[in-house]
Amino acid sequence: MHPNDGFRELGRAECLRLLATAPVGRVVYTRQALPAVVPVNFGLDTDGAVLLRTPAASELARAVDGAVVAFEADAVDMARRAGWSVVVTGPAEIVIDGPEAGRLERMAPCSWVPSPDEVFIRIDAELVTGRELVGRRTMYGVPLPA
Amino acid sequence: MHPNDGFRELGRAECLRLLATAPVGRVVYTRQALPAVVPVNFGLDTDGAVLLRTPAASELARAVDGAVVAFEADAVDMARRAGWSVVVTGPAEIVIDGPEAGRLERMAPCSWVPSPDEVFIRIDAELVTGRELVGRRTMYGVPLPA
Repeated sequence: MHPNDGFRELGRAECLRLLATAPVGRVVYTRQALPAVVPVNFGLDTDGAVLLRTPAASELARAVDGAVVAFEADAVDMARRAGWSVVVTGPAEIVIDGPEAGRLERMAPCSWVPSPDEVFIRIDAELVTGRELVGRRTMYGVPLPA
Repeated sequence: MHPNDGFRELGRAECLRLLATAPVGRVVYTRQALPAVVPVNFGLDTDGAVLLRTPAASELARAVDGAVVAFEADAVDMARRAGWSVVVTGPAEIVIDGPEAGRLERMAPCSWVPSPDEVFIRIDAELVTGRELVGRRTMYGVPLPA
């Protein structure tokens, strides 16, 4: 990325630290060969994996099981032209029962709309990228409008 | 969708009205066969198409030209367990010059980080879906924790 393009690349640790501050993120996946996206609340596992709950019968659970998905969160302050975005990309796994489900039961946040047949989705943080919008204040040496 | 699942489906007109209130949205596309997502500021064309600007040489411009992409915006109030999300799905087109570029010049918002070689991306609003989180207050007749 161009050093003066108004963005600063963020390292993995910084990305995960910012991600932990976001109340909402978005799962990005493929549905019938088309791009799909759904906002969710989420938690982070100790290794940075993204954790969420969804009904077992949900389209999301069916679509992402075993697939590589992306998970995005951001915070942008339009007035200050400042903000950040982080994307976690990795394989999603459905966890239904066993000791791992017991562990996630304690770590994953409750659904916005709890359902009696929930499963856990765990998105492995294989690739974690992020950037901070630091803004460009001039172009061709001329200040940009505020 | 189950009538009591805590979500209400939104019609196209309502989706576009909400979309117009969002300062930020996210383009969802495919990059090297993997799901990718990037937050952007945007405008809406008179027919609901999503308009944005990006450098001609950007990865986004190269990746989405002619492809079907999704565009998502949302607003969620965690405390009230209320919110909405809207997704526009349709083919993306790069507009570089000609009368259409002149028209979009007046309609598309400025980039967060303006660049001298910008093009327009226009995402046709072929499919517009949205839902409102209305929350579920009880499960099995038992009030959920606030």
